[in-house]
Amino acid sequence: MNMSVRGAPAIGVAASFGVYLSSLESKRNVNEYVKKAIRELALTRPTARNLFWALEKMEKVLNKSVNRGEGVGILRRRLLAEAKKIYEFEKRTSFLIGKYGNKLIEKKDKILTVCNAGALATVGWGTALSIVYQAHNLRKNIKVFACETRPRLQGARLTCWELIKEGINVTLITDFAAGRLIQENRIDKIITGADRILRNGDVANKIGTYTLAVLAKRHRIPFYVAAPFSTFDFNLRSWQDIPIEERDKKEVLYINKIPIAPLEVEVYNPAFDCVPHSLISAIITERGIIYPPFHIK
Amino acid sequence: MNMSVRGAPAIGVAASFGVYLSSLESKRNVNEYVKKAIRELALTRPTARNLFWALEKMEKVLNKSVNRGEGVGILRRRLLAEAKKIYEFEKRTSFLIGKYGNKLIEKKDKILTVCNAGALATVGWGTALSIVYQAHNLRKNIKVFACETRPRLQGARLTCWELIKEGINVTLITDFAAGRLIQENRIDKIITGADRILRNGDVANKIGTYTLAVLAKRHRIPFYVAAPFSTFDFNLRSWQDIPIEERDKKEVLYINKIPIAPLEVEVYNPAFDCVPHSLISAIITERGIIYPPFHIK
Repeated sequence: MNMSVRGAPAIGVAASFGVYLSSLESKRNVNEYVKKAIRELALTRPTARNLFWALEKMEKVLNKSVNRGEGVGILRRRLLAEAKKIYEFEKRTSFLIGKYGNKLIEKKDKILTVCNAGALATVGWGTALSIVYQAHNLRKNIKVFACETRPRLQGARLTCWELIKEGINVTLITDFAAGRLIQENRIDKIITGADRILRNGDVANKIGTYTLAVLAKRHRIPFYVAAPFSTFDFNLRSWQDIPIEERDKKEVLYINKIPIAPLEVEVYNPAFDCVPHSLISAIITERGIIYPPFHIK
Repeated sequence: MNMSVRGAPAIGVAASFGVYLSSLESKRNVNEYVKKAIRELALTRPTARNLFWALEKMEKVLNKSVNRGEGVGILRRRLLAEAKKIYEFEKRTSFLIGKYGNKLIEKKDKILTVCNAGALATVGWGTALSIVYQAHNLRKNIKVFACETRPRLQGARLTCWELIKEGINVTLITDFAAGRLIQENRIDKIITGADRILRNGDVANKIGTYTLAVLAKRHRIPFYVAAPFSTFDFNLRSWQDIPIEERDKKEVLYINKIPIAPLEVEVYNPAFDCVPHSLISAIITERGIIYPPFHIK
């Protein structure tokens, strides 16, 4: 599977427009055709909850329209309207996450993040980076440290690019250098996005998030997760139940198409890991900040 | 500074032969010339203790010979003999580390390591990997997980190559994937080399070692450090005192000469980090295994 869209909220929004587009493609039996598209879209990525959240919303609109016996033209308009609604909702959500999150940010904070939870992962401002952008606009004089985030280097390629563009002070580090920075007492807060959050507060996010949370706990640094409610999974009970996408060994073995290791070597390449709720200081959503103990509804 | 030689024990051995070679170059005033070479060699890398250990041995031989008023020919022969002695000593040492370390290795152990502490970092078998090689020869059916070790990818390039060559089962992971592997209970032991060890058991080693030690502590996995006595620094009192080499930002920004981030970004690139002794389960040396509480003499 190619990774053409990434970032949990962006995946959800893209999928909802994908459902609409499938209704345009369908010649007859729109219901069947769009349902098949929804099933196919659901198989693209297993971990990000927002994908299923958006597809469920689109399927509801489809079912309602079909049950009413509406024509194809009306159905298509309804699907487009829903996709646009999801888009606008997530855009507003991203702004609110940044706004609420700023209650936790002090002047001159040094913030560590992993992967890219910014404009390029969402619609609007992002999640973790929405907090950073708004802190910058509030002249809090913050400093960001970006883990490069192997294997796909979203931190190096995307987060650094986004922050430099906005004139925000950003320093790139290799992933393991996070431990040294924290050991030197040079980090005040860690903020990441999330791909899935359970009602008990357990989180799945980009590989490395668990390691950062463990380091934060040892050094008593606040560890914050920023994500929209569309990220919440109210069915699963524990992080052990969250399906973790394992991606192709080529992602690790090649950088810019050049091999970095003997090609016959075995590779283990999980795209995400999980943070048990006991390591999380707060979850920042569009409805406000949630503190532990987490019983999210 | 180019990194032409790497691996703490290999650095020490290479430096001792470097001192001998400088004595061949010198035209007159050998004493001054070789002393200057020793000073220059001491400035090449700040963290690995073995470098200074070997240079001190060579300087002693130099001083003794000069005090005796010996001729240049004799001095050169003495320096070569000493360099060879250091070489043979470290080779034997590396074998013994593997031998003693195997007391700690059980059948089917899954061992995680970082960087390269093998034949390519030492003379002979290596340190951490000497244990692995000998466990393999003892048919313990072990499995190794190698952190790729950004930025220079010694794990991917060197450790995987070494182990595949010997027919040892090795799996490459990105550095942050170590946390996921450990979270999944798929690691039995972590073994690393060391660049410097203090008498209280504090260790400096390749960036990422601290992070692995913190993860090991949380998951009650044994965390072993394997290193020769030439790694020990009996002067410094705490890991905070160990000088940590910071290397060029280009090491992070380019992989195989291709940029992986906006080139104007700031970079922090520490080559090593430190593990406080409270996180270390045992130190494996050529004299045997040292257990906490550490009071090393």
